Amino acid sequence: MYIPSYQDMLDAHDRIRAHIRRTPIRTSDYLDQLTGARLFFKCENFQEPGAFKVRGASNAVFGLSDEQAARGVATHSSGNHASCLSYAAMLRGIPCHVVMPRTAPQAKKDTVRRYGGVITECEPSTSSREETFARVQAETGGDFVHPYNDPRVIAGQGTCARELVEQVAELDGGALDAVVAPIGGGGMISGTCLTLSTLAPNTRVIAAEPEQADDAYRSFQAGRIIADDAPKTIADGLLVPLKDLTWHFVRNHVSEIYTASDPEIVDAMKLIWKHLRIVMEPSSAVPSATILKNPEAFAGQRVGIIITGGNVNLDRLPWI
Amino acid sequence: MYIPSYQDMLDAHDRIRAHIRRTPIRTSDYLDQLTGARLFFKCENFQEPGAFKVRGASNAVFGLSDEQAARGVATHSSGNHASCLSYAAMLRGIPCHVVMPRTAPQAKKDTVRRYGGVITECEPSTSSREETFARVQAETGGDFVHPYNDPRVIAGQGTCARELVEQVAELDGGALDAVVAPIGGGGMISGTCLTLSTLAPNTRVIAAEPEQADDAYRSFQAGRIIADDAPKTIADGLLVPLKDLTWHFVRNHVSEIYTASDPEIVDAMKLIWKHLRIVMEPSSAVPSATILKNPEAFAGQRVGIIITGGNVNLDRLPWI
Repeated sequence: MYIPSYQDMLDAHDRIRAHIRRTPIRTSDYLDQLTGARLFFKCENFQEPGAFKVRGASNAVFGLSDEQAARGVATHSSGNHASCLSYAAMLRGIPCHVVMPRTAPQAKKDTVRRYGGVITECEPSTSSREETFARVQAETGGDFVHPYNDPRVIAGQGTCARELVEQVAELDGGALDAVVAPIGGGGMISGTCLTLSTLAPNTRVIAAEPEQADDAYRSFQAGRIIADDAPKTIADGLLVPLKDLTWHFVRNHVSEIYTASDPEIVDAMKLIWKHLRIVMEPSSAVPSATILKNPEAFAGQRVGIIITGGNVNLDRLPWI
Repeated sequence: MYIPSYQDMLDAHDRIRAHIRRTPIRTSDYLDQLTGARLFFKCENFQEPGAFKVRGASNAVFGLSDEQAARGVATHSSGNHASCLSYAAMLRGIPCHVVMPRTAPQAKKDTVRRYGGVITECEPSTSSREETFARVQAETGGDFVHPYNDPRVIAGQGTCARELVEQVAELDGGALDAVVAPIGGGGMISGTCLTLSTLAPNTRVIAAEPEQADDAYRSFQAGRIIADDAPKTIADGLLVPLKDLTWHFVRNHVSEIYTASDPEIVDAMKLIWKHLRIVMEPSSAVPSATILKNPEAFAGQRVGIIITGGNVNLDRLPWI
């Protein structure tokens, strides 16, 4: 197991900078008053393919040798990693094969296909996904880019926290007391830990998780990886379990894991849409839901929140 | 009739800079491919009270003498001017009285009240609004800040085009061939004309109007102000007529007025929500609707689009 280093993150940033957006920070006086904290929202939903995962995917794709690149890349993903890897592969002009559960949101399938990704559908279970993926990879020879348990991906995701720290300093010269990000498989959280443990070691890294898919919370309490059995939550980007590499970062660098219920997540989602006026996924509302639920943990503090993605089916909003 | 000058706009910018946001520019490779133009969206929906009108309102409020300020401000408005004037008055700590049609969206009334504005409701007709307003102003002595036909307001709105030109130049060093903004009473369009006619005289100013409230289009064709009779459109921020001051700018500086139907506006609104991942009002979708409808007028050009506001009732979206 290779643990990516701070230098790997810096190299990733140089490699991907031309292919991603330096997404803006949003703030809201209203939300600051409501929570009693000073909140800085990093809008990764504004990446061209709509999610932070374009960072790790671009780092993997643009780091391939020409020989490897000719065979393309392959992955399995419940959504945003698939579209972001397809997008990065399209930018480099190489094939991208994606195994995706047939139950994944139509909007995410449409996005993958728009970027030239080739989808092979599987059943929504770990075993079906693994079997299908093994077959696809054997047939295509594509380089496997795991959605999160890959040092290239984690180094890429870490570039987001670097920009967040820089941009908050540009705004008012200040530092952050904490950064809160959603946790599913742990790729964004791991990249955030990787970056902040060197760049801003006094900034706490806090993971936010749906109650109904709380494997990371239970793993964190138990001190070993515990998987969910058939998790089910509105935050459909956060259903996957921790793996060895992400568990390394969670165990060693995360300060706290908070959870929120699905109704709390939907309420926070609508609140952010209304007051920040951004379109974001339910998964991206989990940090705000946990802050609203635990105001004492954040009162008076400067808190970065990573808005991870914005690919939503606008015909089916969870509060309507 | 005092016509505001370019210097008035510069003075306004200095006066309001600390009270408004320098809102970001959003771009989308997908929307560029779809339209064949290079589009730069200026996100005024990201102002704290959710609309560009905070610029003109702040310029009026912060330009008052202390003596005038003690009596506060008063206005009539179908929505965003009301909340933005209330917001600016709250920042200065002075009273704000608002006459608003009882049929105005609940979300906009809520926002006014959250900022301490005092609402007096009228019937949704010009005569009722004028009668009610005369009474409120007589009772309170508040300084009348018209939603658009006021040189202070137009000078304030003009600061948006100045930022747009600067920010596009910062992004890639280039200029704009055109700027498209919605037209209702004409405040934003007038401010845009005021600024660009000096700062970027080769940039065309194009107004975008709902077909079902096309008084500006008909006035532009006829060469004199023609009012609508009971206009009705989903773009509820654009129902009001031109007045002498805004007509001056429209007649002398606007290159073209394009119109779009309500279904075209709703389609464009959903498209922008999906691909820019921002929450914006139907009124803000009219420019994009007209560009999608008239691609030949914009093909190969660099086009600024002003996203004017983001105060929407999220429980009632027009495509659901």
